[in-house]
Amino acid sequence: MSEHAHPGYLQTKDTYLKRLRRIEGQARGLQRMVEEETYCIDILTQVSAMTKALQAVALGLLEEHVEHCVADAVRAGGPEAQDKLREANEAIARLVRS
Amino acid sequence: MSEHAHPGYLQTKDTYLKRLRRIEGQARGLQRMVEEETYCIDILTQVSAMTKALQAVALGLLEEHVEHCVADAVRAGGPEAQDKLREANEAIARLVRS
Amino acid sequence: MSEHAHPGYLQTKDTYLKRLRRIEGQARGLQRMVEEETYCIDILTQVSAMTKALQAVALGLLEEHVEHCVADAVRAGGPEAQDKLREANEAIARLVRS
Amino acid sequence: MSEHAHPGYLQTKDTYLKRLRRIEGQARGLQRMVEEETYCIDILTQVSAMTKALQAVALGLLEEHVEHCVADAVRAGGPEAQDKLREANEAIARLVRS
Repeated sequence: MSEHAHPGYLQTKDTYLKRLRRIEGQARGLQRMVEEETYCIDILTQVSAMTKALQAVALGLLEEHVEHCVADAVRAGGPEAQDKLREANEAIARLVRS
Repeated sequence: MSEHAHPGYLQTKDTYLKRLRRIEGQARGLQRMVEEETYCIDILTQVSAMTKALQAVALGLLEEHVEHCVADAVRAGGPEAQDKLREANEAIARLVRS
Repeated sequence: MSEHAHPGYLQTKDTYLKRLRRIEGQARGLQRMVEEETYCIDILTQVSAMTKALQAVALGLLEEHVEHCVADAVRAGGPEAQDKLREANEAIARLVRS
Repeated sequence: MSEHAHPGYLQTKDTYLKRLRRIEGQARGLQRMVEEETYCIDILTQVSAMTKALQAVALGLLEEHVEHCVADAVRAGGPEAQDKLREANEAIARLVRS
């Protein structure tokens, strides 16, 4: 069994699926708006809403990752703990910069 | 004919549709990753890529809006010009803060 | 007289100077916190406040630039108008990505 | 001795002081630019550079906080571990949203 068999979001998997389906729907809604030549500013408002929804998914996943995967690795100790900490910090930096 | 009959992205409509379809595909890809219990960090990397793609769409739309709709309104002058400038500035602020 | 003799923020110069002095004070406050070995999270909260203050200055300057310099260039027309629009769009993109 | 007597950045305190002094200098440079009525776009470029420098300080502090304070608390276990994890996640969210 791989070390990743249980991702941090396992208990909340259904919530993430629901949120991602809604985000997929937003992407389809944006296509419809472009098809119908909706006013640019109204499209931008929808893009902002979708970006915020995506960012909330990222923060949720990161939070559960830190609380479960990273905390477990730190408790287990050894080089794996350092790897997980470094990897989490890199993910945080990517998220802050995106 | 309404003032918004020709949005700023009219010439590039197909490009936006293609980019939004790809973004919709990324949202579906993320659902598949969650279904298959993919490692959190790998999902986060995909969420970052999707956020960047969305941000690029927003910047493209805003750019064309400023170069066409806003510039046209400024050339026409009157209160409409001020409205369009204010509206564009509000959209820029929303984008910077999201 | 150069084309830039009157920047867009001319009427509000004193407000910007005051805001930038406050931001300079925040930078000194942060040094004091580090000197006194303040708890990391409390420093981060101050850094966030300072980042928001800087972002507000940037949005304010950009807004006045678009409403004055860019709008004036568009009204005057010619290649200068296109240059100013392109330049403003690049500044917006830098701000959104930073 | 308080639990915060040794912040995560203790070993790198001098580096942070140097970086914050440089950021303070950038804030002073911006005031000079406004005084001299520098072109808006050139000021915006400097504001972007300063924002990036501040963001790098925040990411550095957060990284050391997670690797030292949070990891130590997790190894020690108990309610303090949960508190530190929650607090770090809140700081990450503030940083991502700012």
